[in-house]
Amino acid sequence: MFLYHKVNFNSTYANRGMGLENDIDITNKYYIDNDIALIYKKPTPIRITKTNYNNMRVVDGFFERESTLDYNGVYKGYYIEFDAKETRSTTSFSLNNIHKHQLEYIAKVIHHKGIVFLIVRFTVLNKDFILNGVDLMEFIKDNERKSIPLSYFEDNCYKVDIKYAPRLDYIKIVDILIKEKKN
Amino acid sequence: MFLYHKVNFNSTYANRGMGLENDIDITNKYYIDNDIALIYKKPTPIRITKTNYNNMRVVDGFFERESTLDYNGVYKGYYIEFDAKETRSTTSFSLNNIHKHQLEYIAKVIHHKGIVFLIVRFTVLNKDFILNGVDLMEFIKDNERKSIPLSYFEDNCYKVDIKYAPRLDYIKIVDILIKEKKN
Repeated sequence: MFLYHKVNFNSTYANRGMGLENDIDITNKYYIDNDIALIYKKPTPIRITKTNYNNMRVVDGFFERESTLDYNGVYKGYYIEFDAKETRSTTSFSLNNIHKHQLEYIAKVIHHKGIVFLIVRFTVLNKDFILNGVDLMEFIKDNERKSIPLSYFEDNCYKVDIKYAPRLDYIKIVDILIKEKKN
Repeated sequence: MFLYHKVNFNSTYANRGMGLENDIDITNKYYIDNDIALIYKKPTPIRITKTNYNNMRVVDGFFERESTLDYNGVYKGYYIEFDAKETRSTTSFSLNNIHKHQLEYIAKVIHHKGIVFLIVRFTVLNKDFILNGVDLMEFIKDNERKSIPLSYFEDNCYKVDIKYAPRLDYIKIVDILIKEKKN
């Protein structure tokens, strides 16, 4: 997939609908290969209900509901954790996109002083934002609404532009979040 | 399992052969429940080769070889990663217990300033040690030997005693590793 991108590189690569998760995977690979950060997608938790006779092969299992976030790792000694969320809305990001357990988990990471955020993609608008977990929790505390308007993202979040490599360079924003945390 | 421990609590609980991984799981649960740290066992990576018609159930899959370490999480903002290793030897810990990919991975975590270590249990001796990743890498660099003698652990590592709760209180040692890192 990565090679495919390389070979076919042109100015429209942002619109290929590869999906946010794929963009993040490519970015994380770039960070790892270039010794910038060590951040991975967690394996999908599968509840194994049956293996074959020598326990080498799974013959029955369920995907489990995710209660943490999808990506975690280390950058400059800091604990980093985030999730990728996509919406087709052009006006707001529905909070239904975040499971209750995930919100509780975000609160816990904040309590333990980790850097935690969401990467929110408005797919139709072709816009990616970093929503700091601290800001998300404050929004929920201060608002009755069930969604976060686009204007909130424009005013309070960090925009990340898609480029060639690193494709979705979110670590620059993490630098800002680290600085903010220290102040 | 945890309740079973509670009900049957007595002075011999250290010798029940529950296994190191189980002791760590119980300890991590204690840390999470008491807001001390947020450290989890990573889900076992499974390469899914077949799901059923609606993609809700895994009907064929392989366990993948682990190239990272089993546990990671956040403590006081620091990235923590470690693995659990058991040996029945009473004299040394064979380096064959650590896969080459895991060693490379440990070097990477160190590069990114994470706290990384092994919890090594000498099961027959009933002794648990914390082997700092930095010390492990130095040992390998400085020595030709294929195993780390028990005396090295006694002289250079931190011993952790099994107690009731938290069962294997490794986070106290993490505090020391953080302090060492800062100096």
